[in-house]
Amino acid sequence: MNIILIKKEDFISKNTIRISDSRLLHIRNVLKIQKGDSIQTGIINGSIGEAILLEREEHADLFSINCSAPPPPPVPVTLVLALPRPKVLRRILQSITTMGIKKIIIINTYRVEKSYWQTPFLSETALHEQLISGLQQAKDTVLPEIQTEKRFRPFVEDRLPLILQDKKGYIAHPYTDSSLSICHNKASVLAIGPEGGFIPFEINLLEKAGMSSFSMGHRILKVETAVPVLVSRFLSF
Amino acid sequence: MNIILIKKEDFISKNTIRISDSRLLHIRNVLKIQKGDSIQTGIINGSIGEAILLEREEHADLFSINCSAPPPPPVPVTLVLALPRPKVLRRILQSITTMGIKKIIIINTYRVEKSYWQTPFLSETALHEQLISGLQQAKDTVLPEIQTEKRFRPFVEDRLPLILQDKKGYIAHPYTDSSLSICHNKASVLAIGPEGGFIPFEINLLEKAGMSSFSMGHRILKVETAVPVLVSRFLSF
Repeated sequence: MNIILIKKEDFISKNTIRISDSRLLHIRNVLKIQKGDSIQTGIINGSIGEAILLEREEHADLFSINCSAPPPPPVPVTLVLALPRPKVLRRILQSITTMGIKKIIIINTYRVEKSYWQTPFLSETALHEQLISGLQQAKDTVLPEIQTEKRFRPFVEDRLPLILQDKKGYIAHPYTDSSLSICHNKASVLAIGPEGGFIPFEINLLEKAGMSSFSMGHRILKVETAVPVLVSRFLSF
Repeated sequence: MNIILIKKEDFISKNTIRISDSRLLHIRNVLKIQKGDSIQTGIINGSIGEAILLEREEHADLFSINCSAPPPPPVPVTLVLALPRPKVLRRILQSITTMGIKKIIIINTYRVEKSYWQTPFLSETALHEQLISGLQQAKDTVLPEIQTEKRFRPFVEDRLPLILQDKKGYIAHPYTDSSLSICHNKASVLAIGPEGGFIPFEINLLEKAGMSSFSMGHRILKVETAVPVLVSRFLSF
Protein backbone atom coordinates (compact mmCIF):
# COMPACT_ATOMS: atom_id res chain seq x y z
CA MET A 1 0.00 0.00 0.00
CA ASN A 2 1.82 3.10 -1.23
CA ILE A 3 -1.14 5.43 -0.81
CA ILE A 4 -4.26 5.27 1.38
CA LEU A 5 -7.47 5.73 -0.61
CA ILE A 6 -10.12 7.98 0.93
CA LYS A 7 -13.86 7.61 0.37
CA LYS A 8 -16.47 10.37 0.45
CA GLU A 9 -17.89 8.86 3.64
CA ASP A 10 -14.54 9.40 5.39
CA PHE A 11 -14.96 13.19 5.33
CA ILE A 12 -16.33 14.69 8.51
CA SER A 13 -15.68 18.27 7.33
CA LYS A 14 -14.24 19.86 4.19
CA ASN A 15 -10.63 19.07 5.10
CA THR A 16 -10.93 16.50 7.85
CA ILE A 17 -11.29 12.74 7.53
CA ARG A 18 -11.93 9.99 10.05
CA ILE A 19 -10.59 6.51 9.28
CA SER A 20 -11.84 3.52 11.21
CA ASP A 21 -11.74 0.36 9.09
CA SER A 22 -8.98 -1.98 7.93
CA ARG A 23 -6.95 1.01 6.70
CA LEU A 24 -6.52 1.92 10.36
CA LEU A 25 -4.62 -1.31 10.99
CA HIS A 26 -2.25 -0.44 8.16
CA ILE A 27 -1.79 3.11 9.46
CA ARG A 28 -1.13 1.96 13.01
CA ASN A 29 0.70 -1.34 12.53
CA VAL A 30 2.61 -0.85 9.29
CA LEU A 31 3.08 2.91 8.87
CA LYS A 32 3.25 3.36 12.68
CA ILE A 33 2.71 7.11 12.48
CA GLN A 34 2.24 9.47 15.41
CA LYS A 35 0.30 12.73 15.84
CA GLY A 36 1.64 15.34 13.41
CA ASP A 37 3.02 12.72 10.98
CA SER A 38 1.68 12.57 7.45
CA ILE A 39 0.58 9.76 5.16
CA GLN A 40 0.18 9.71 1.38
CA THR A 41 -3.48 9.74 0.40
CA GLY A 42 -5.69 9.88 -2.65
CA ILE A 43 -9.40 10.50 -2.97
CA ILE A 44 -11.14 7.74 -4.92
CA ASN A 45 -11.57 9.00 -8.51
CA GLY A 46 -9.95 12.29 -7.41
CA SER A 47 -6.64 13.94 -6.57
CA ILE A 48 -3.66 12.71 -4.58
CA GLY A 49 -1.85 14.41 -1.74
CA GLU A 50 -1.31 13.87 1.96
CA ALA A 51 -3.06 13.76 5.30
CA ILE A 52 -1.69 14.74 8.72
CA LEU A 53 -2.71 12.86 11.86
CA LEU A 54 -4.64 15.23 14.14
CA GLU A 55 -6.26 13.01 16.74
CA ARG A 56 -6.13 9.38 17.72
CA GLU A 57 -9.39 7.94 19.08
CA GLU A 58 -9.69 4.37 20.35
CA HIS A 59 -11.11 2.98 17.09
CA ALA A 60 -10.41 5.78 14.61
CA ASP A 61 -7.77 8.25 13.46
CA LEU A 62 -8.60 11.84 12.47
CA PHE A 63 -6.56 13.56 9.76
CA SER A 64 -6.47 16.92 8.05
CA ILE A 65 -6.25 16.20 4.35
CA ASN A 66 -4.89 18.11 1.37
CA CYS A 67 -5.14 16.42 -2.03
CA SER A 68 -4.55 18.54 -5.12
CA ALA A 69 -2.15 16.68 -7.44
CA PRO A 70 -3.59 14.75 -10.38
CA PRO A 71 -3.37 10.95 -10.34
CA PRO A 72 -0.91 9.34 -12.80
CA PRO A 73 -2.10 9.25 -16.43
CA PRO A 74 -4.15 6.22 -17.45
CA VAL A 75 -3.17 3.77 -20.18
CA PRO A 76 -5.60 4.10 -23.10
CA VAL A 77 -6.08 0.36 -23.49
CA THR A 78 -9.33 -1.55 -23.18
CA LEU A 79 -8.39 -5.05 -22.10
CA VAL A 80 -10.65 -7.88 -23.29
CA LEU A 81 -9.69 -10.86 -21.17
CA ALA A 82 -11.02 -14.42 -21.28
CA LEU A 83 -12.00 -15.28 -17.71
CA PRO A 84 -8.96 -16.98 -16.12
CA ARG A 85 -8.84 -19.33 -13.14
CA PRO A 86 -10.31 -17.53 -10.12
CA LYS A 87 -7.03 -17.38 -8.16
CA VAL A 88 -5.27 -15.97 -11.19
CA LEU A 89 -8.14 -13.53 -11.83
CA ARG A 90 -7.57 -11.90 -8.44
CA ARG A 91 -3.85 -11.38 -8.95
CA ILE A 92 -4.29 -10.28 -12.53
CA LEU A 93 -6.92 -7.65 -11.76
CA GLN A 94 -4.56 -6.06 -9.26
CA SER A 95 -1.72 -6.19 -11.73
CA ILE A 96 -3.84 -4.68 -14.55
CA THR A 97 -4.96 -1.91 -12.22
CA THR A 98 -1.43 -1.03 -11.11
CA MET A 99 -0.40 -0.68 -14.76
CA GLY A 100 -3.09 1.98 -15.28
CA ILE A 101 -5.70 0.24 -17.44
CA LYS A 102 -9.15 1.73 -16.84
CA LYS A 103 -11.45 -0.53 -18.82
CA ILE A 104 -11.51 -4.31 -18.45
CA ILE A 105 -13.99 -6.56 -20.22
CA ILE A 106 -14.02 -10.13 -18.89
CA ILE A 107 -15.44 -12.47 -21.50
CA ASN A 108 -16.47 -16.06 -21.90
CA THR A 109 -14.88 -18.13 -24.66
CA TYR A 110 -15.07 -21.75 -25.74
CA ARG A 111 -12.02 -22.74 -23.68
CA VAL A 112 -13.01 -20.92 -20.47
CA GLU A 113 -14.08 -23.49 -17.89
CA LYS A 114 -17.76 -22.91 -17.18
CA SER A 115 -17.24 -23.35 -13.42
CA TYR A 116 -15.00 -20.26 -13.30
CA TRP A 117 -18.09 -18.08 -13.67
CA GLN A 118 -19.29 -19.29 -10.25
CA THR A 119 -16.31 -17.84 -8.39
CA PRO A 120 -17.02 -15.42 -5.53
CA PHE A 121 -14.06 -13.38 -6.84
CA LEU A 122 -16.41 -12.06 -9.55
CA SER A 123 -18.76 -10.50 -6.99
CA GLU A 124 -18.86 -6.72 -7.05
CA THR A 125 -17.32 -6.48 -3.56
CA ALA A 126 -14.47 -8.86 -4.39
CA LEU A 127 -13.69 -7.10 -7.67
CA HIS A 128 -13.77 -3.71 -5.95
CA GLU A 129 -11.31 -4.97 -3.33
CA GLN A 130 -8.78 -6.04 -5.97
CA LEU A 131 -9.09 -2.76 -7.83
CA ILE A 132 -8.59 -0.76 -4.63
CA SER A 133 -5.49 -2.85 -3.79
CA GLY A 134 -4.11 -2.18 -7.26
CA LEU A 135 -4.73 1.55 -7.01
CA GLN A 136 -3.16 1.75 -3.54
CA GLN A 137 -0.11 -0.08 -4.88
CA ALA A 138 0.24 2.22 -7.92
CA LYS A 139 -0.55 5.52 -6.14
CA ASP A 140 -3.54 5.93 -8.42
CA THR A 141 -7.14 6.89 -7.55
CA VAL A 142 -9.19 6.23 -10.67
CA LEU A 143 -11.18 2.99 -10.41
CA PRO A 144 -11.12 0.86 -13.56
CA GLU A 145 -14.49 -0.09 -14.98
CA ILE A 146 -15.14 -3.84 -15.24
CA GLN A 147 -17.69 -5.32 -17.60
CA THR A 148 -18.45 -9.03 -17.81
CA GLU A 149 -19.71 -10.60 -21.04
CA LYS A 150 -20.87 -14.18 -20.63
CA ARG A 151 -22.00 -14.56 -24.24
CA PHE A 152 -19.11 -14.28 -26.67
CA ARG A 153 -20.93 -13.84 -29.94
CA PRO A 154 -23.38 -11.03 -29.10
CA PHE A 155 -20.53 -9.16 -27.40
CA VAL A 156 -18.17 -9.47 -30.37
CA GLU A 157 -20.80 -8.88 -33.04
CA ASP A 158 -22.89 -6.16 -31.42
CA ARG A 159 -20.80 -4.29 -28.86
CA LEU A 160 -17.14 -4.74 -29.82
CA PRO A 161 -17.41 -2.85 -33.16
CA LEU A 162 -18.66 0.24 -31.27
CA ILE A 163 -15.80 -0.02 -28.75
CA LEU A 164 -13.36 -0.27 -31.68
CA GLN A 165 -14.68 2.81 -33.49
CA ASP A 166 -11.82 5.12 -32.46
CA LYS A 167 -9.28 2.44 -31.49
CA LYS A 168 -7.02 -0.19 -32.99
CA GLY A 169 -7.78 -3.76 -31.93
CA TYR A 170 -5.21 -6.48 -31.29
CA ILE A 171 -5.67 -10.19 -30.57
CA ALA A 172 -2.82 -12.11 -28.91
CA HIS A 173 -2.86 -15.34 -30.89
CA PRO A 174 -0.02 -17.89 -31.02
CA TYR A 175 -0.84 -19.20 -34.49
CA THR A 176 -0.22 -16.19 -36.69
CA ASP A 177 2.80 -14.57 -38.30
CA SER A 178 2.21 -10.86 -37.67
CA SER A 179 3.94 -9.23 -34.75
CA LEU A 180 2.87 -6.39 -32.49
CA SER A 181 4.48 -3.05 -33.15
CA ILE A 182 5.08 -0.56 -30.38
CA CYS A 183 1.87 1.26 -29.57
CA HIS A 184 2.82 3.54 -26.67
CA ASN A 185 -0.23 5.44 -25.55
CA LYS A 186 -2.30 4.65 -28.65
CA ALA A 187 -5.97 4.10 -27.91
CA SER A 188 -6.31 0.35 -28.33
CA VAL A 189 -8.30 -2.74 -27.55
CA LEU A 190 -6.19 -5.75 -26.57
CA ALA A 191 -7.79 -9.19 -26.47
CA ILE A 192 -6.10 -12.01 -24.55
CA GLY A 193 -7.53 -15.53 -24.78
CA PRO A 194 -7.79 -18.32 -22.22
CA GLU A 195 -5.26 -21.13 -21.65
CA GLY A 196 -5.18 -22.92 -24.98
CA GLY A 197 -6.11 -19.72 -26.81
CA PHE A 198 -9.14 -18.65 -28.79
CA ILE A 199 -10.63 -21.23 -31.17
CA PRO A 200 -10.56 -20.44 -34.94
CA PHE A 201 -14.26 -19.55 -34.93
CA GLU A 202 -13.63 -16.94 -32.24
CA ILE A 203 -10.57 -15.50 -34.00
CA ASN A 204 -12.71 -15.21 -37.10
CA LEU A 205 -15.45 -13.28 -35.34
CA LEU A 206 -12.94 -11.01 -33.59
CA GLU A 207 -11.25 -10.25 -36.90
CA LYS A 208 -14.60 -9.58 -38.55
CA ALA A 209 -15.33 -7.10 -35.77
CA GLY A 210 -12.17 -5.23 -36.79
CA MET A 211 -9.37 -6.70 -34.64
CA SER A 212 -6.00 -7.94 -35.96
CA SER A 213 -4.15 -11.02 -34.74
CA PHE A 214 -0.50 -10.91 -33.76
CA SER A 215 1.86 -13.55 -32.42
CA MET A 216 3.99 -13.36 -29.28
CA GLY A 217 6.52 -15.81 -30.70
CA HIS A 218 7.05 -19.47 -29.95
CA ARG A 219 6.84 -19.33 -26.19
CA ILE A 220 3.52 -19.95 -24.49
CA LEU A 221 3.21 -17.66 -21.50
CA LYS A 222 0.80 -18.05 -18.62
CA VAL A 223 -1.88 -15.37 -18.68
CA GLU A 224 -0.43 -13.70 -15.56
CA THR A 225 2.87 -13.21 -17.42
CA ALA A 226 1.33 -12.53 -20.84
CA VAL A 227 -0.83 -9.65 -19.61
CA PRO A 228 2.01 -7.45 -18.27
CA VAL A 229 4.30 -8.44 -21.17
CA LEU A 230 1.63 -7.33 -23.66
CA VAL A 231 0.41 -4.26 -21.79
CA SER A 232 4.06 -3.14 -21.58
CA ARG A 233 3.86 -2.48 -25.34
CA PHE A 234 1.34 0.28 -24.59
CA LEU A 235 3.18 1.85 -21.63
CA SER A 236 5.48 4.74 -22.32
CA PHE A 237 8.36 4.90 -19.87
CA MET B 1 2.47 -28.12 -19.17
CA ASN B 2 2.80 -27.63 -22.94
CA ILE B 3 5.76 -29.96 -23.35
CA ILE B 4 7.08 -32.89 -21.31
CA LEU B 5 10.76 -32.54 -20.45
CA ILE B 6 12.87 -35.67 -20.78
CA LYS B 7 15.98 -36.41 -18.72
CA LYS B 8 18.97 -38.50 -19.73
CA GLU B 9 17.95 -41.13 -17.18
CA ASP B 10 14.63 -41.61 -18.99
CA PHE B 11 16.35 -43.19 -22.00
CA ILE B 12 16.36 -46.99 -22.04
CA SER B 13 17.70 -47.14 -25.59
CA LYS B 14 18.73 -44.59 -28.24
CA ASN B 15 15.14 -43.73 -29.21
CA THR B 16 13.08 -45.16 -26.38
CA ILE B 17 12.19 -43.54 -23.05
CA ARG B 18 10.46 -44.84 -19.95
CA ILE B 19 8.54 -42.33 -17.80
CA SER B 20 7.48 -43.25 -14.30
CA ASP B 21 7.34 -40.19 -12.04
CA SER B 22 4.89 -37.28 -11.65
CA ARG B 23 4.99 -36.71 -15.42
CA LEU B 24 3.17 -40.02 -15.74
CA LEU B 25 0.20 -38.60 -13.83
CA HIS B 26 0.04 -35.68 -16.26
CA ILE B 27 0.30 -37.99 -19.27
CA ARG B 28 -2.41 -40.32 -17.99
CA ASN B 29 -4.80 -37.94 -16.18
CA VAL B 30 -4.51 -34.72 -18.14
CA LEU B 31 -3.33 -35.65 -21.62
CA LYS B 32 -5.20 -39.00 -21.43
CA ILE B 33 -3.32 -40.49 -24.37
CA GLN B 34 -3.59 -44.06 -25.63
CA LYS B 35 -1.10 -46.39 -27.35
CA GLY B 36 -0.02 -44.87 -30.67
CA ASP B 37 -0.82 -41.29 -29.55
CA SER B 38 1.96 -38.72 -29.38
CA ILE B 39 2.97 -36.08 -26.86
CA GLN B 40 5.17 -33.01 -27.29
CA THR B 41 8.55 -33.52 -25.68
CA GLY B 42 11.87 -31.78 -25.22
CA ILE B 43 15.17 -33.10 -23.97
CA ILE B 44 16.54 -31.01 -21.10
CA ASN B 45 19.13 -28.61 -22.59
CA GLY B 46 18.46 -30.22 -25.99
CA SER B 47 16.02 -30.40 -28.89
CA ILE B 48 12.23 -30.52 -28.98
CA GLY B 49 9.98 -32.94 -30.83
CA GLU B 50 7.52 -35.67 -29.99
CA ALA B 51 7.18 -39.09 -28.42
CA ILE B 52 4.77 -41.86 -29.32
CA LEU B 53 3.31 -44.16 -26.67
CA LEU B 54 4.54 -47.72 -27.31
CA GLU B 55 3.72 -49.64 -24.15
CA ARG B 56 1.83 -49.01 -20.95
CA GLU B 57 3.21 -50.77 -17.85
CA GLU B 58 1.54 -50.56 -14.46
CA HIS B 59 3.79 -47.75 -13.16
CA ALA B 60 5.46 -46.50 -16.33
CA ASP B 61 4.84 -45.55 -19.95
CA LEU B 62 7.29 -46.41 -22.75
CA PHE B 63 7.64 -44.06 -25.69
CA SER B 64 9.62 -43.91 -28.91
CA ILE B 65 11.04 -40.38 -29.06
CA ASN B 66 12.15 -38.13 -31.90
CA CYS B 67 13.45 -34.67 -30.95
CA SER B 68 15.29 -32.67 -33.59
CA ALA B 69 13.89 -29.11 -33.60
CA PRO B 70 15.82 -26.40 -31.77
CA PRO B 71 14.26 -24.85 -28.63
CA PRO B 72 12.98 -21.25 -28.94
CA PRO B 73 15.70 -18.59 -28.93
CA PRO B 74 16.76 -17.27 -25.50
CA VAL B 75 16.45 -13.64 -24.40
CA PRO B 76 19.95 -12.18 -23.99
CA VAL B 77 19.18 -10.55 -20.66
CA THR B 78 20.91 -11.24 -17.37
CA LEU B 79 18.38 -10.45 -14.66
CA VAL B 80 19.73 -9.15 -11.35
CA LEU B 81 16.86 -9.44 -8.91
CA ALA B 82 16.68 -8.43 -5.25
CA LEU B 83 15.36 -11.48 -3.39
CA PRO B 84 11.56 -11.08 -3.18
CA ARG B 85 9.12 -12.63 -0.71
CA PRO B 86 9.43 -16.43 -0.96
CA LYS B 87 5.91 -16.97 -2.38
CA VAL B 88 6.55 -14.32 -5.00
CA LEU B 89 10.00 -15.76 -5.75
CA ARG B 90 8.45 -19.07 -6.81
CA ARG B 91 5.96 -17.51 -9.21
CA ILE B 92 8.48 -15.05 -10.57
CA LEU B 93 11.12 -17.68 -11.33
CA GLN B 94 8.58 -19.57 -13.42
CA SER B 95 7.52 -16.40 -15.18
CA ILE B 96 11.14 -15.36 -15.89
CA THR B 97 11.86 -18.82 -17.26
CA THR B 98 8.83 -18.83 -19.57
CA MET B 99 9.97 -15.50 -21.04
CA GLY B 100 13.30 -17.07 -22.04
CA ILE B 101 15.82 -15.50 -19.67
CA LYS B 102 18.79 -17.82 -19.11
CA LYS B 103 20.76 -16.09 -16.40
CA ILE B 104 19.28 -14.96 -13.09
CA ILE B 105 21.31 -13.45 -10.26
CA ILE B 106 19.40 -13.21 -6.98
CA ILE B 107 20.98 -10.59 -4.75
CA ASN B 108 20.69 -9.21 -1.27
CA THR B 109 20.08 -5.49 -0.79
CA TYR B 110 19.46 -3.24 2.19
CA ARG B 111 15.67 -3.49 1.89
CA VAL B 112 15.53 -7.29 1.41
CA GLU B 113 14.15 -8.87 4.58
CA LYS B 114 16.90 -11.02 6.03
CA SER B 115 14.45 -13.85 6.82
CA TYR B 116 13.74 -14.35 3.11
CA TRP B 117 17.13 -16.00 2.74
CA GLN B 118 15.95 -18.85 4.98
CA THR B 119 13.19 -19.93 2.60
CA PRO B 120 13.19 -23.56 1.41
CA PHE B 121 12.24 -22.17 -2.04
CA LEU B 122 15.91 -21.24 -2.46
CA SER B 123 17.06 -24.86 -2.15
CA GLU B 124 18.52 -26.32 -5.32
CA THR B 125 15.65 -28.83 -5.67
CA ALA B 126 12.96 -26.17 -5.23
CA LEU B 127 14.63 -23.80 -7.69
CA HIS B 128 15.05 -26.61 -10.22
CA GLU B 129 11.36 -27.47 -9.91
CA GLN B 130 10.28 -23.89 -10.74
CA LEU B 131 12.63 -23.70 -13.70
CA ILE B 132 11.35 -27.02 -15.08
CA SER B 133 7.74 -25.80 -14.69
CA GLY B 134 8.59 -22.62 -16.56
CA LEU B 135 10.32 -24.50 -19.38
CA GLN B 136 7.41 -26.96 -19.72
CA GLN B 137 5.02 -24.01 -19.93
CA ALA B 138 7.08 -22.20 -22.60
CA LYS B 139 8.00 -25.27 -24.69
CA ASP B 140 11.65 -24.60 -23.96
CA THR B 141 14.38 -27.00 -22.84
CA VAL B 142 17.32 -24.83 -21.80
CA LEU B 143 17.62 -24.51 -18.02
CA PRO B 144 18.38 -20.99 -16.80
CA GLU B 145 21.40 -20.61 -14.57
CA ILE B 146 20.71 -19.17 -11.12
CA GLN B 147 23.37 -17.51 -9.02
CA THR B 148 22.76 -16.13 -5.51
CA GLU B 149 24.77 -13.23 -4.13
CA LYS B 150 24.20 -12.61 -0.44
CA ARG B 151 26.75 -9.81 -0.21
CA PHE B 152 25.79 -6.80 -2.33
CA ARG B 153 29.02 -4.85 -2.37
CA PRO B 154 31.52 -7.54 -3.38
CA PHE B 155 29.10 -8.68 -6.07
CA VAL B 156 28.61 -5.20 -7.53
CA GLU B 157 32.23 -4.10 -7.20
CA ASP B 158 34.07 -7.29 -8.16
CA ARG B 159 31.81 -9.46 -10.33
CA LEU B 160 29.24 -7.14 -11.96
CA PRO B 161 31.79 -5.15 -14.03
CA LEU B 162 32.94 -8.40 -15.67
CA ILE B 163 29.34 -9.42 -16.44
CA LEU B 164 28.79 -5.97 -17.97
CA GLN B 165 31.84 -6.12 -20.25
CA ASP B 166 29.89 -6.85 -23.45
CA LYS B 167 26.45 -5.72 -22.28
CA LYS B 168 24.45 -2.61 -21.44
CA GLY B 169 23.26 -2.40 -17.85
CA TYR B 170 19.93 -0.94 -16.69
CA ILE B 171 18.60 -0.27 -13.18
CA ALA B 172 14.84 0.08 -12.67
CA HIS B 173 14.69 3.02 -10.27
CA PRO B 174 11.61 5.14 -9.55
CA TYR B 175 13.51 8.30 -8.67
CA THR B 176 15.21 9.20 -11.92
CA ASP B 177 14.22 11.02 -15.10
CA SER B 178 15.70 8.82 -17.82
CA SER B 179 13.45 6.35 -19.56
CA LEU B 180 14.19 2.93 -21.02
CA SER B 181 14.44 2.76 -24.78
CA ILE B 182 13.45 -0.37 -26.67
CA CYS B 183 16.23 -2.91 -26.50
CA HIS B 184 14.88 -5.92 -28.38
CA ASN B 185 17.41 -8.69 -28.26
CA LYS B 186 20.29 -6.50 -27.13
CA ALA B 187 22.64 -8.22 -24.69
CA SER B 188 21.77 -6.52 -21.41
CA VAL B 189 21.85 -6.69 -17.65
CA LEU B 190 18.62 -5.59 -15.97
CA ALA B 191 18.60 -4.90 -12.23
CA ILE B 192 15.30 -4.83 -10.33
CA GLY B 193 15.26 -3.77 -6.68
CA PRO B 194 13.20 -4.95 -3.71
CA GLU B 195 9.92 -3.43 -2.50
CA GLY B 196 10.87 0.12 -1.61
CA GLY B 197 13.67 0.10 -4.19
CA PHE B 198 17.43 0.26 -3.94
CA ILE B 199 18.86 2.76 -1.45
CA PRO B 200 20.95 5.68 -2.85
CA PHE B 201 24.20 4.00 -1.76
CA GLU B 202 23.29 0.92 -3.79
CA ILE B 203 22.27 2.96 -6.86
CA ASN B 204 25.61 4.71 -6.59
CA LEU B 205 27.59 1.46 -6.54
CA LEU B 206 25.54 0.00 -9.40
CA GLU B 207 26.14 3.12 -11.49
CA LYS B 208 29.85 3.06 -10.67
CA ALA B 209 29.92 -0.53 -11.94
CA GLY B 210 28.59 0.76 -15.28
CA MET B 211 24.81 0.48 -15.02
CA SER B 212 22.35 3.30 -15.90
CA SER B 213 19.17 4.12 -13.98
CA PHE B 214 15.84 4.56 -15.72
CA SER B 215 12.37 5.32 -14.43
CA MET B 216 9.20 3.32 -15.09
CA GLY B 217 7.01 6.37 -14.53
CA HIS B 218 4.92 7.37 -11.54
CA ARG B 219 3.26 4.05 -10.87
CA ILE B 220 4.81 1.66 -8.39
CA LEU B 221 4.41 -1.89 -9.65
CA LYS B 222 4.74 -5.04 -7.60
CA VAL B 223 7.83 -7.00 -8.54
CA GLU B 224 5.71 -9.78 -10.13
CA THR B 225 4.24 -7.20 -12.52
CA ALA B 226 7.39 -5.11 -12.94
CA VAL B 227 9.51 -8.05 -14.08
CA PRO B 228 7.40 -9.03 -17.13
CA VAL B 229 6.68 -5.35 -17.96
CA LEU B 230 10.42 -4.64 -18.01
CA VAL B 231 11.56 -7.86 -19.67
CA SER B 232 8.96 -7.17 -22.40
CA ARG B 233 11.21 -4.30 -23.55
CA PHE B 234 13.82 -6.91 -24.49
CA LEU B 235 11.47 -9.39 -26.20
CA SER B 236 11.03 -9.12 -29.94
CA PHE B 237 7.59 -10.22 -31.07
